[in-house]
Amino acid sequence: MKAVRFTNWKTFPELKEIDRPTPGPGEVLLKVAGAGACHSDVAIFQDYDADFPVAHFLGPEYTLGHENSGWIEELGEGVTGLKKGDAYLIYGPIGCGHCRSCSRGQDTYCDNVAEMPYMGMGLGRDGGMAEYIVAPARNLVPLGDADPVEAAPLADAGLTPYHAIKTSMRQLEGGGKFALVIGLGGLGQLGVQMLKALTGATVIATDMKADAMAMAERNGAITVEGGPDQAAKIRELTGGRGVDAVFDFVGVKPTVEVAQQVVARRGRITVVGIAGGKVEWDFYTNPYEAELTNTYWGTIEDLYDVADLYRAGLIKPEVTVYPMDKALDAYQDLVDGKVSGRAVVAPHS
Amino acid sequence: MKAVRFTNWKTFPELKEIDRPTPGPGEVLLKVAGAGACHSDVAIFQDYDADFPVAHFLGPEYTLGHENSGWIEELGEGVTGLKKGDAYLIYGPIGCGHCRSCSRGQDTYCDNVAEMPYMGMGLGRDGGMAEYIVAPARNLVPLGDADPVEAAPLADAGLTPYHAIKTSMRQLEGGGKFALVIGLGGLGQLGVQMLKALTGATVIATDMKADAMAMAERNGAITVEGGPDQAAKIRELTGGRGVDAVFDFVGVKPTVEVAQQVVARRGRITVVGIAGGKVEWDFYTNPYEAELTNTYWGTIEDLYDVADLYRAGLIKPEVTVYPMDKALDAYQDLVDGKVSGRAVVAPHS
Amino acid sequence: MKAVRFTNWKTFPELKEIDRPTPGPGEVLLKVAGAGACHSDVAIFQDYDADFPVAHFLGPEYTLGHENSGWIEELGEGVTGLKKGDAYLIYGPIGCGHCRSCSRGQDTYCDNVAEMPYMGMGLGRDGGMAEYIVAPARNLVPLGDADPVEAAPLADAGLTPYHAIKTSMRQLEGGGKFALVIGLGGLGQLGVQMLKALTGATVIATDMKADAMAMAERNGAITVEGGPDQAAKIRELTGGRGVDAVFDFVGVKPTVEVAQQVVARRGRITVVGIAGGKVEWDFYTNPYEAELTNTYWGTIEDLYDVADLYRAGLIKPEVTVYPMDKALDAYQDLVDGKVSGRAVVAPHS
Amino acid sequence: MKAVRFTNWKTFPELKEIDRPTPGPGEVLLKVAGAGACHSDVAIFQDYDADFPVAHFLGPEYTLGHENSGWIEELGEGVTGLKKGDAYLIYGPIGCGHCRSCSRGQDTYCDNVAEMPYMGMGLGRDGGMAEYIVAPARNLVPLGDADPVEAAPLADAGLTPYHAIKTSMRQLEGGGKFALVIGLGGLGQLGVQMLKALTGATVIATDMKADAMAMAERNGAITVEGGPDQAAKIRELTGGRGVDAVFDFVGVKPTVEVAQQVVARRGRITVVGIAGGKVEWDFYTNPYEAELTNTYWGTIEDLYDVADLYRAGLIKPEVTVYPMDKALDAYQDLVDGKVSGRAVVAPHS
Repeated sequence: MKAVRFTNWKTFPELKEIDRPTPGPGEVLLKVAGAGACHSDVAIFQDYDADFPVAHFLGPEYTLGHENSGWIEELGEGVTGLKKGDAYLIYGPIGCGHCRSCSRGQDTYCDNVAEMPYMGMGLGRDGGMAEYIVAPARNLVPLGDADPVEAAPLADAGLTPYHAIKTSMRQLEGGGKFALVIGLGGLGQLGVQMLKALTGATVIATDMKADAMAMAERNGAITVEGGPDQAAKIRELTGGRGVDAVFDFVGVKPTVEVAQQVVARRGRITVVGIAGGKVEWDFYTNPYEAELTNTYWGTIEDLYDVADLYRAGLIKPEVTVYPMDKALDAYQDLVDGKVSGRAVVAPHS
Repeated sequence: MKAVRFTNWKTFPELKEIDRPTPGPGEVLLKVAGAGACHSDVAIFQDYDADFPVAHFLGPEYTLGHENSGWIEELGEGVTGLKKGDAYLIYGPIGCGHCRSCSRGQDTYCDNVAEMPYMGMGLGRDGGMAEYIVAPARNLVPLGDADPVEAAPLADAGLTPYHAIKTSMRQLEGGGKFALVIGLGGLGQLGVQMLKALTGATVIATDMKADAMAMAERNGAITVEGGPDQAAKIRELTGGRGVDAVFDFVGVKPTVEVAQQVVARRGRITVVGIAGGKVEWDFYTNPYEAELTNTYWGTIEDLYDVADLYRAGLIKPEVTVYPMDKALDAYQDLVDGKVSGRAVVAPHS
Repeated sequence: MKAVRFTNWKTFPELKEIDRPTPGPGEVLLKVAGAGACHSDVAIFQDYDADFPVAHFLGPEYTLGHENSGWIEELGEGVTGLKKGDAYLIYGPIGCGHCRSCSRGQDTYCDNVAEMPYMGMGLGRDGGMAEYIVAPARNLVPLGDADPVEAAPLADAGLTPYHAIKTSMRQLEGGGKFALVIGLGGLGQLGVQMLKALTGATVIATDMKADAMAMAERNGAITVEGGPDQAAKIRELTGGRGVDAVFDFVGVKPTVEVAQQVVARRGRITVVGIAGGKVEWDFYTNPYEAELTNTYWGTIEDLYDVADLYRAGLIKPEVTVYPMDKALDAYQDLVDGKVSGRAVVAPHS
Repeated sequence: MKAVRFTNWKTFPELKEIDRPTPGPGEVLLKVAGAGACHSDVAIFQDYDADFPVAHFLGPEYTLGHENSGWIEELGEGVTGLKKGDAYLIYGPIGCGHCRSCSRGQDTYCDNVAEMPYMGMGLGRDGGMAEYIVAPARNLVPLGDADPVEAAPLADAGLTPYHAIKTSMRQLEGGGKFALVIGLGGLGQLGVQMLKALTGATVIATDMKADAMAMAERNGAITVEGGPDQAAKIRELTGGRGVDAVFDFVGVKPTVEVAQQVVARRGRITVVGIAGGKVEWDFYTNPYEAELTNTYWGTIEDLYDVADLYRAGLIKPEVTVYPMDKALDAYQDLVDGKVSGRAVVAPHS
């Protein structure tokens, strides 16, 4: 079968012919419906090298693609309660499976991660940029009748903002709340949709690109442009009180600083974007009880919730579909900044 | 000034001329914008008598009306930060002001209630069915530019479902949740609107009246008729899983039993309606960790949230406005079951 | 190897010689350190029959024992990160492993339970009343240096009250709180210890047996005898306010009724005992916002917490140890009401 | 009567004779039982000047003392339910009384603070370093039979750590948790006592002073000395996992940095100390979902909880009592670093 392989550090992936895998005990073989191309993949094949802290998990060679969906093709030994032909979202992270974190379905924070050979499917272990993928049965979330191709990005671009929003619900529940989304790429747009669906908050959004702002407006956000008075404008929209929950999907120093300037007393800033901007924090400039934190991906149960939102029509990823033969174009377009929404490779569409 | 007075047990109220009151220290005189007529008023003047458990709080004679709004007319001694002419919702309950419950703005659960001469404005102390009302400054919630006449019912018919929903947010937050509203009068309709505004839950609603069902549908609910298979139909809508949060605004035995039949494991039933239906509960018929509880009115902070929802256009009470001269008609129509939405007496409209 | 087998409905178990089992993929073989004898086992072999609702899960023949601990003897295919000779508590429930509930480690509420051939180890699938047991790797919770024999009851008699307390923490956190434990058998005594360790609540306890009361007192509880004025005495201990969290480990009608009489406004009653007492509930007798609920066992993560409490010396089960040859005596003594604390079969001690 | 007056910026306070005040409507006159001398008072009279941001609230001349207790001497107009001679803790902050924050008893975060003439008693308005004090009835928390002199520091040195701990309960509830207290002065020592009383966490504590460390140990903490490997030692005590809730009562850059180095994934750092240390924060050095925040004082309801902990004997401030004539010595000893525990002026002892 065809697969997009990460073959070496600092090297653009290759489309190769490899053997179709076989599911082991407790695993399932799925025909891939969709596999999203993510910026973090680009970081892996373009920026990292063998000295990068997590290089031992992510080192070549393997099949890329960590946000995937598919139809079950074959059940491994001991797997019951799943049906051939049914469509599923695939939870990407794979931890040890028996620590405290994995026991609650949060493999992202596996306590034994140091002893694992990989971080997940498409992250050290073969992922979804291929005709078939093998996944643990435990990582599958049913999609029912919903379109699995369009759904593929939900496994990361949906799950990540969802988890950030879920952990900010103390700040967002009830009337009179304000949320701010910084960065309106795939994750940010889904973040806007989720905030509108799940809370009564006024959603404010910002991005450098006019079309991304326009799309956020169509999804119900009020947008504010960048510039020196951006923070003042945002605070004014909140009646001076500030924003209850900020989600920064960029994470550079200037965006985190805007978050710090607009957050309300008892509010929360969640930095999701991995740009690594370094900011200053002190007692006197942080509004009382405002929390500054970060987050990484989500839990299996979160992905059930995301699937439910999608199946109920409350969220809808914007995708550009690439056939298997054009899979490398998906990454090339991503590198070139040409992708609108999320690039999804759909080998069987 | 004119006022609707509760003059004796088992006696229909009278429209009387009384003196305009004067605000004491820490109090404010408001020109009444709206005063809602509530079913519990009818219970007081029609059903209760001097032997009723809380009769010492509620005994005649006083001005009715416990869900009120108004414009500030005069500030009492020591009141600052409030402005003449501004419009406010009035939080009706009045506790001792210095116990644990009152300290958090939950006068409904005042720990010294036994020593209080009344339960609140329109409940033993003069209420809003008059041209003017005196209220503690602490009980005022600003309405800004929003219409205070239409807003009046929010002080009870809005605050009560809001508090019930707020205390059910653990069950309702996130994707894939189901809520059920039983009883689509004034409180139930606002409950439906709030659930749609504040959560991503699928809202199911039921009532005996077709037009109430139709209104709930316009507000985004799925409706289910009564009948022997009602519980089965509701459970089917949830995919068999059951309802995460049930709000019973009626509270008779059959409605609480429906709630018990449809609630999900780890769900919550909140009985809001005061009909006093008695049901059975046992370990084996209660889904694991499903909670059965009741609730009464809400907190001052809750009313701030409700005002924000109203000011943002997310909720809108349906009101029928009566001038001061027709104030008794409001109660008569309520007794006769002729009121659609909430009957609001607006003395200055 | 020797094993205590449930051979037929309404039949006392037998001590039989069976083959030592072999761990499948993802499973582990453990040398049993301890297996607790639980009242629910007695219900299974003494009271139930083929018509009982969950009989298809629990039907004979299998090895009893659902609260177990052991040392790893052999790792099945694909199991990593666990070490031969190490001691573990064993989480008893086994669900489908891939539904929403199982994904968060709450197999007790498996959404596909209807399709499962058993409910867990010692509950339809071979349990720990034997020299060896096979358990899924995911069900193991490390005990470190702590004594695994004494620890065995924690897997049920510890986990169950822990989960009940954890889900009552909203009621118990902070100063000035009151807890009530009804029923001071194995679960109740551990409940008292946990409440003292984890909260600042004043712990009140009650039981019919004087020695059980004495033990609860040694663990820091204030005890109140039964009798007609029991509820009044308990309420007096709370300064009239009532109990914030009641845990009823008996669950007969009179105990649940005491719980209802003493619970505080905004409090919580959790019925843990499976006696199935039927009580009445209505709006006017339930203190506002007091919750009535039940619960069943707990999650894998809860068991990690319980193990930590034990390893830190904050809880200590009282056990009576039986060798393998006397295993049937453990059940006989339980039937005869002769067991003090928890009867634990320790095949290798 | 005698009173300790803050007379001018950068000026040591004076002991003066002033008129005994009279309670206004809604207020109460109390005979002062105890008034704690706080480091923040020293900052006010020693470090601040008219250019300090909040100088308009705190400008001279007024009576110092913001953590107070007393016996009611006289009730102002309209005050009911309080009794002459009874002992009370006094909640120091005074907000507008009718905003959202004040409505929930959190005057510290009054939304109209800009329009207030003072921040509270002893903070712009006459405080408790005098024979008598006037306080709003709403600010009184009953002490029952407990000693009000010793209790005085609870109004700040107790309330502040309590609020910090209460807002960290998500991190601390359940088994296997770790807390770290940095800075073992009056607040830190009470923090240690509260953590031991209210949680099952292992409490680690650190300070520069050996005797403060010894006292924390007597209260149940494990102590770790400062030095280059302090963070490593603390992390080791947690089994490598890190600290779930850090409370930094110092707040200089090195202490906040230690907090950042030891906090666990999903943990929380609360900076309570107002030293204003500035630290760096970025996505890659912050453990996932660890929260960095600050806090200020607490709510009236929190103070009820603190009073309950004290009345139950679970916490006990260490105090050095000064008679009224020696009141200035209390501040001088504080300035000189000679006070062990909290210096309390007790005018009537």
